[in-house]
Amino acid sequence: MDSSVVELYRASADDLDVARAAWVSQDEAAHAKEAEPGRVEGLIRFLWRNQHTSPFEHGQFTFIVTTPLFVAREFMRHRTFSFNEISGRYTVLPDRFYLPPPHRPLRQEGKVGAYRFEIGTPDQISLARDTIEQSTIQAYEAYLKMLDAGIAREVARDVLPVNVMTSFWATVNPRNLMHFLSLRSAADALFEIREVAEQMEHHFAQQMPITHSVWRDTAQA
Amino acid sequence: MDSSVVELYRASADDLDVARAAWVSQDEAAHAKEAEPGRVEGLIRFLWRNQHTSPFEHGQFTFIVTTPLFVAREFMRHRTFSFNEISGRYTVLPDRFYLPPPHRPLRQEGKVGAYRFEIGTPDQISLARDTIEQSTIQAYEAYLKMLDAGIAREVARDVLPVNVMTSFWATVNPRNLMHFLSLRSAADALFEIREVAEQMEHHFAQQMPITHSVWRDTAQA
Amino acid sequence: MDSSVVELYRASADDLDVARAAWVSQDEAAHAKEAEPGRVEGLIRFLWRNQHTSPFEHGQFTFIVTTPLFVAREFMRHRTFSFNEISGRYTVLPDRFYLPPPHRPLRQEGKVGAYRFEIGTPDQISLARDTIEQSTIQAYEAYLKMLDAGIAREVARDVLPVNVMTSFWATVNPRNLMHFLSLRSAADALFEIREVAEQMEHHFAQQMPITHSVWRDTAQA
Amino acid sequence: MDSSVVELYRASADDLDVARAAWVSQDEAAHAKEAEPGRVEGLIRFLWRNQHTSPFEHGQFTFIVTTPLFVAREFMRHRTFSFNEISGRYTVLPDRFYLPPPHRPLRQEGKVGAYRFEIGTPDQISLARDTIEQSTIQAYEAYLKMLDAGIAREVARDVLPVNVMTSFWATVNPRNLMHFLSLRSAADALFEIREVAEQMEHHFAQQMPITHSVWRDTAQA
Repeated sequence: MDSSVVELYRASADDLDVARAAWVSQDEAAHAKEAEPGRVEGLIRFLWRNQHTSPFEHGQFTFIVTTPLFVAREFMRHRTFSFNEISGRYTVLPDRFYLPPPHRPLRQEGKVGAYRFEIGTPDQISLARDTIEQSTIQAYEAYLKMLDAGIAREVARDVLPVNVMTSFWATVNPRNLMHFLSLRSAADALFEIREVAEQMEHHFAQQMPITHSVWRDTAQA
Repeated sequence: MDSSVVELYRASADDLDVARAAWVSQDEAAHAKEAEPGRVEGLIRFLWRNQHTSPFEHGQFTFIVTTPLFVAREFMRHRTFSFNEISGRYTVLPDRFYLPPPHRPLRQEGKVGAYRFEIGTPDQISLARDTIEQSTIQAYEAYLKMLDAGIAREVARDVLPVNVMTSFWATVNPRNLMHFLSLRSAADALFEIREVAEQMEHHFAQQMPITHSVWRDTAQA
Repeated sequence: MDSSVVELYRASADDLDVARAAWVSQDEAAHAKEAEPGRVEGLIRFLWRNQHTSPFEHGQFTFIVTTPLFVAREFMRHRTFSFNEISGRYTVLPDRFYLPPPHRPLRQEGKVGAYRFEIGTPDQISLARDTIEQSTIQAYEAYLKMLDAGIAREVARDVLPVNVMTSFWATVNPRNLMHFLSLRSAADALFEIREVAEQMEHHFAQQMPITHSVWRDTAQA
Repeated sequence: MDSSVVELYRASADDLDVARAAWVSQDEAAHAKEAEPGRVEGLIRFLWRNQHTSPFEHGQFTFIVTTPLFVAREFMRHRTFSFNEISGRYTVLPDRFYLPPPHRPLRQEGKVGAYRFEIGTPDQISLARDTIEQSTIQAYEAYLKMLDAGIAREVARDVLPVNVMTSFWATVNPRNLMHFLSLRSAADALFEIREVAEQMEHHFAQQMPITHSVWRDTAQA
């Protein structure tokens, strides 16, 4: 069974552009400041701390995300991204499903607004994994059976469970990427979307190391 | 089994506001025109035909939509709506699933970009309905079994199929509602989302009869 | 000369809807909680503190704002509003201009990112007010002269200064209204947009007293 | 005096990405189609004609626009762009103003919704140009006089007319760029914003020749 993978299709964004976009508001001579050590970092830190977010919008990341459908559902609630996803109407979805790994916490304790999660007992782990695997296999067989009988893909897929793997392009600017990461890499975010967010954060850190580090300081505060 | 239902929670929108918002661009005396017969309709027709869409944004509809998850997925790709949805993390999802009715076309003919759909043969109809029903029952039993064993709701729900019923608030302004309806009540839209769009259109027509009729003329053109 | 005025054209929003939209994510029984004292306020406080902002989007305020053009410019950078504005292409703009009142701070001290403003000396106050008034009168005469000569409004208005009064409809949901107010009623916001924001906040507080008070606590923190 | 200039700061967008993003919805083998002659163009044409606009969102253009403030006002009504603009609060705005060239139509005939514009008579042309120039010079002198007296930039600028030149970064994806161009290069768009739109279209055509040509066919229809 499968786990989530995030590839970077393309990034067109860098730290210097954030500073340059901010300097537009001042005189042109400001551009001379680029060469001064620490100047760009100081400005980025100032902008972020004071919620001057517009200079973080002139850049773009396109990710190719492969993840279970229940993660895609949560991901696509972010209306600041552009998406194109594999379609169960146009394609036979492949036999790929997500199975929670043993270290995935299985027990939810506490009440709404203050949940804690604990690793499952060995019995819970094997029950969860066996049950999900068997139910998934059964559902995919039902799917194939309908396709074989000439039923349209968009009807046959009704039986596919939300742990079926899906794949999509997700395009976003740095400002909205940071907003996504703040919510989806938080301690109370869904385990499976955190795995996606961590991979996205890795690409972000590679591409915009200063902005990433400034964001990280705030996110942890 | 269930079918989609759209309730109107609240509408705060009317035809006259469209005209008033447009008249803002001219002198104040324009408001005197409200009383002239046909004036409001003529203006709305002019605005829509010429893509002056901003006057259609000062109003709001809040719908409560109950529909299968695979319809919700397509619905929520519309980034101009505000959503709040029942959560499989916080709630045990009830035993409610969608089963395609006999008149739901089952056979997809033609190629990408030019599909046609045909009603299924009696054999196809019973095979599809039996298979979906049995697979759904099996999946829900697996869900309950995991919940009984103390597995967290957000893990147990991995097995639930995309025909499980979900429910959400969807709030939108008239301009973006019309855009949604143009795409989702079109002949090539998914059968199940058309059923949702038709109910939304009914509420829209009740609330803004002139704007609805102007939109309808264009949508059919 | 003129100062800014904000009228509320219509509000369709209340505190209870925020709670109801949030309860959608849980079971239906949650609705019974409406009657419990303090329950709605507690929930709104929890949602806001934890950045669960979507329940604050199911509502709408439409303001009619009359303000100088330089304030409108800053206002319309907020892309979450819907706008319709009086047009200098379609209308002769009336002879209404903004003149800074004597208590408007005139002196800017300090450096970028840490400006302070001080009240002007009596000499500065009269120089500023006289200069602005005379320049404005001269510009409006030039405008009328061109109109008299048959020059199109959209060309003649080129000479009008940015303190000319404009008027527009501004429609927004409660979530984005709070974001606007956080930025535009802050201590370092432009004096003239703060006057607009304060009037908007007054209408917001009347309509959604609990949400307003929760927002206020955060904004001051 | 000055006219509008649009520079391309950076483009990260090409025709092939549109096709690739669309192919995501189908099976992976679709990528093999890239090499077939005419395949990409055929697909782009199909997508645009059928309003499948999401594949046009995975790309980005950043323009540096220098234009009169009254054009910037209209430009910034487009909420799908990201902007950073020179600020009259932080900078002394330079002595640069727009003067309508002799071929700029000066006479507006007809009624609302069906205006025509005609070139001015020689008398109108010299009256308009002289009046605008003199009024502008007077206003800038008033601006400098206040700055000399220690009045804050954000107050002194109140007298600057809307033909003062401003400069901003404008970032947008291809889909929303085409929407902007459809409205702002139309025959009834403001003369001065058409000059801006034409320069933007030139950069767009260089970067995405197929998409541009498909868009152009529709825009002219």
